[in-house]
Amino acid sequence: MNDHIVKSYDSELKRLDGEIKRMGEIATAQLDAAVDVFQRRDSQAAMRVVANDEAIDALEHEVSHDVLRLLALRQPMARDLREVYAALRISADIERIGDYAANVAKRSIVLNQTAPVSAGRGLPALAHLANTLVREALAAYTLRDAERAMAVRSRDAELDAQYTGLFRELLTYMAEDPRQITACTHLLFMAKNIERIGDHATNIAENTWFLVHGEQPEGEREKRDLTSQ
Amino acid sequence: MNDHIVKSYDSELKRLDGEIKRMGEIATAQLDAAVDVFQRRDSQAAMRVVANDEAIDALEHEVSHDVLRLLALRQPMARDLREVYAALRISADIERIGDYAANVAKRSIVLNQTAPVSAGRGLPALAHLANTLVREALAAYTLRDAERAMAVRSRDAELDAQYTGLFRELLTYMAEDPRQITACTHLLFMAKNIERIGDHATNIAENTWFLVHGEQPEGEREKRDLTSQ
Repeated sequence: MNDHIVKSYDSELKRLDGEIKRMGEIATAQLDAAVDVFQRRDSQAAMRVVANDEAIDALEHEVSHDVLRLLALRQPMARDLREVYAALRISADIERIGDYAANVAKRSIVLNQTAPVSAGRGLPALAHLANTLVREALAAYTLRDAERAMAVRSRDAELDAQYTGLFRELLTYMAEDPRQITACTHLLFMAKNIERIGDHATNIAENTWFLVHGEQPEGEREKRDLTSQ
Repeated sequence: MNDHIVKSYDSELKRLDGEIKRMGEIATAQLDAAVDVFQRRDSQAAMRVVANDEAIDALEHEVSHDVLRLLALRQPMARDLREVYAALRISADIERIGDYAANVAKRSIVLNQTAPVSAGRGLPALAHLANTLVREALAAYTLRDAERAMAVRSRDAELDAQYTGLFRELLTYMAEDPRQITACTHLLFMAKNIERIGDHATNIAENTWFLVHGEQPEGEREKRDLTSQ
């Protein structure tokens, strides 16, 4: 095969990799920033977090564009095709993670319009765990390490349990003081967003497994959100 | 080009089309069923709705599998490539719609464990509108009708407004009677699920536009969930 073509194909895959890496860095930074502005009750900074989400959306469009071009011009097969397919899937998951992080920031602005409630204390720890899962999933993807990816799946159950605890706690706050209902409702949705981020980390992990092995990982994912059971 | 290859390629695209049509039919039927079991407070039937979601997940896997095979064996270009890309994206959206419908059914089981609350009266109308958007988006996709697809996007704003009304109504119920807080919280999440279904209908519409025109539709989507602003 022509060396020039091979080299160029590799550089295109690397470009995709770089875009996804960049997306992941922004998305995890966004979640950290969302929690930070929530804790500091800084609406100005929260608006910047919301606006920053555009950078992730733009990168996802770039990935889609590059994937379509790569498929058309290079017609990859087998593992190469899975590389491209995984890039498409994983970029969609990161885009959703970014959306959820931005929504956490957006709701923190609403919360700043009412008196502070102590009910949100559990949120940063939940977000910290979720972001750890996302970083782990992305590290496993970067290293194409299927085993490491699968460890994320089992840790998602931990996040779900922590979310369930926070959910129940928020309900008791609402029952004790009806004036906190609006604030607690937004906190509930913020917690739910963070729980969903864990699901997307699991998706990234499963796509990494598929990329390496060419088949879906065995076994069921742990049950999700236990509050609706 | 070999007639046999062309014919076979067409039949593979038709197969994809058929799978997506089937997915769409199940997902919209699932949402109807979820609302029906919610209204009838029928937990047995709700469990069947939850279990049925597997059929949609299995079809999405089939679509992904067929897409990868088609990309590897047929190496489609231009419009053909966009056909395959759109199938992949749209199947992912339908899968999410199915998840949300199943979650509505799942939460209705939790609701049946407490006394009926009148606060959920607005839910069926919301779901009806969301399902209309999904059916319209799928019809536009089936007909490859980009203009019809774009009409879905503007109607999604209607759904968002209706959701916002229901959200505020549920908050007042909670404030008036703290015993309804748990039930109303589940209703809030059910309403949010349905609002998200509208977003996925819009995604399907936008992918249909892209499939036909080879570029993203112009203009911003209307703002989403107004309750977090």
